[in-house]
Amino acid sequence: MSFERPNIKRMQGYTPGEQSNLDGIIKLNTNENPYPATAAVATALAGVRVEDLRRYPSPSALAFRTAAAAYHGLSPENIIPTNGGDELLRLVITTFTSAGDTIAVAEPSYSLYPVLADIQDCELHRIALDEDWNLSADFSRQLADSDAKLCLLVNPHAPTGKLTPQARIIQIAQEFEGVLLVDEAYVDFVDPDLSYELTRELERLGNVIVLRTLSKGYSLAGLRFGYGIGAAQLIAPMMDKTRDSYNTDHVSQLLATAAIESVEEASLSWRKVRMERTRVSAALTSMGFDVLPSECNFLLATLPTGYDAEKLYLDLKSQNILVRYFNQPRLSDKLRISIGNDQENTRLLQAIEQFLLASR
Amino acid sequence: MSFERPNIKRMQGYTPGEQSNLDGIIKLNTNENPYPATAAVATALAGVRVEDLRRYPSPSALAFRTAAAAYHGLSPENIIPTNGGDELLRLVITTFTSAGDTIAVAEPSYSLYPVLADIQDCELHRIALDEDWNLSADFSRQLADSDAKLCLLVNPHAPTGKLTPQARIIQIAQEFEGVLLVDEAYVDFVDPDLSYELTRELERLGNVIVLRTLSKGYSLAGLRFGYGIGAAQLIAPMMDKTRDSYNTDHVSQLLATAAIESVEEASLSWRKVRMERTRVSAALTSMGFDVLPSECNFLLATLPTGYDAEKLYLDLKSQNILVRYFNQPRLSDKLRISIGNDQENTRLLQAIEQFLLASR
Repeated sequence: MSFERPNIKRMQGYTPGEQSNLDGIIKLNTNENPYPATAAVATALAGVRVEDLRRYPSPSALAFRTAAAAYHGLSPENIIPTNGGDELLRLVITTFTSAGDTIAVAEPSYSLYPVLADIQDCELHRIALDEDWNLSADFSRQLADSDAKLCLLVNPHAPTGKLTPQARIIQIAQEFEGVLLVDEAYVDFVDPDLSYELTRELERLGNVIVLRTLSKGYSLAGLRFGYGIGAAQLIAPMMDKTRDSYNTDHVSQLLATAAIESVEEASLSWRKVRMERTRVSAALTSMGFDVLPSECNFLLATLPTGYDAEKLYLDLKSQNILVRYFNQPRLSDKLRISIGNDQENTRLLQAIEQFLLASR
Repeated sequence: MSFERPNIKRMQGYTPGEQSNLDGIIKLNTNENPYPATAAVATALAGVRVEDLRRYPSPSALAFRTAAAAYHGLSPENIIPTNGGDELLRLVITTFTSAGDTIAVAEPSYSLYPVLADIQDCELHRIALDEDWNLSADFSRQLADSDAKLCLLVNPHAPTGKLTPQARIIQIAQEFEGVLLVDEAYVDFVDPDLSYELTRELERLGNVIVLRTLSKGYSLAGLRFGYGIGAAQLIAPMMDKTRDSYNTDHVSQLLATAAIESVEEASLSWRKVRMERTRVSAALTSMGFDVLPSECNFLLATLPTGYDAEKLYLDLKSQNILVRYFNQPRLSDKLRISIGNDQENTRLLQAIEQFLLASR
């Protein structure tokens, strides 16, 4: 006998990337930051006493919200802290879509989106990226035609790494009658010269929620801490109604606050990642890969003609180097490779070079 | 313009108990354990390095599930770790009830239940406790008549502290065609002589999920860690489909595992709480209160005739002693008082005695 709702019974769950803590593993498959969190985070962690955990955490996480608001030039009412960015995605769906409603996403995109839509028993409308992996020219029209209540966009995009310019995002938001969530999980790695800063526009755009996470930019994937930014009337129902009442814990509130307050130090790791990104991209290109220009901490690289992406993935894995292989349309001739530290990247490039030589 | 779903727009959110970190406050309003977590938890906390947070946590929290399974004499497949017990409540609703379905609860009960039912757009059917605060004799019949897909029971009960005997819970489960969640947030404080241990029956009862939390018994409310226990086929859809993919973080997994593995030490605090519970109950009774027998770490006490519960609540608050006052039917002549440590309890009793004298 099964008690599950019909939609839950039908659906497939999300499969996270392989997590491994093997000694000596080079883990370039789930886009963690290769550099550790800031000294301020380490200090905050060292200061946590077990006695501090006896009582409930601050239900509103006001200290973090105040720090994040200061960083973005907004108010605490514009910020909702969440148990990882994933919780924000769930909250946006729970709050703004009913069963049977349509959620629009770009295709390909984060493979959690269809799972979350299934849980809420929503329809998913996939709008294919064009052949250059950009949002199609008629994206707004397709979105309107889909009658979607909610649209989820990753920017910069995963798994391609491409950044959609801010003006285009704003245009889509203004032409859309529903809520637009812009998943900026990788935004910290965007070249500052591109002046991408959508958060400045959120008060004006009343229908946009930006997702940020401390997992990547702040080297805190193990902490599960993300946050949403938006106009106060979009944030309020999630903050006051649909989130779990104590959704973030005392330790993560403390460390997340320290992380945001030490953003200048964190940004040094972002710069190092960008420099390594340039180096790895150039090296792969010189080996015959077609590498998409990336504003994220990973590269999507098409293998040279005649070489098999899945074979390279398995060959690297056999050497304890994990990268991501997607067995799906448009991606199965490619690998997504997170940017590691310089030693890791050098070791990766050597292994790829050997594979190419051996496979000739 | 509002983008909320109609049911979200209509509903009211949950109001957590007052949290205060004022120095010297005596906080007896949200049922925290007055004693700190075990030495093993402190050691685990001291061992966390910021570098450990750089990578994603274990998505399946297998170490914790293995430790909890060993404690309960079950398998890891019977355990789902959650971000506080509240997440388990939400998952049970998300997984087993659709919009429009009915969820049954005893009345009065945990005030989060109606909020979670509203979020899922479910009907709530309240089955009143009898005049002695027990489940009514015809509870199963009322439950069947309600056509509920899910029933949420707190045992031992909050806010009364009463324990429903195990045999009665089993009978209700066997007579119920839906899923029964037994919220055992306070079970660690039950007198061991009562031999209440529902977890031993879960493999046999295919429709019961037990909620446990580390917030109370393990002095870790600030950590947000709970877990569900049930037959593998009940746990699987929540574990594999409806929970957020990384729902518990690295630090909390580590500390929760240490807590469960040091349960013998934790149980010393449970014994101290029971002893203080007996002392406070006797003292209140001698002052003319009517105190319900409690198997929790709090007491529900009716004020002596002629005294006003809200006034006592405010009087105590003015002295930095927080207790819980419920302005609702059947409860507005009572206070719910968490059991503190011996100094806190003594201070509370003195303040109450003074109030009674002054109000005569």
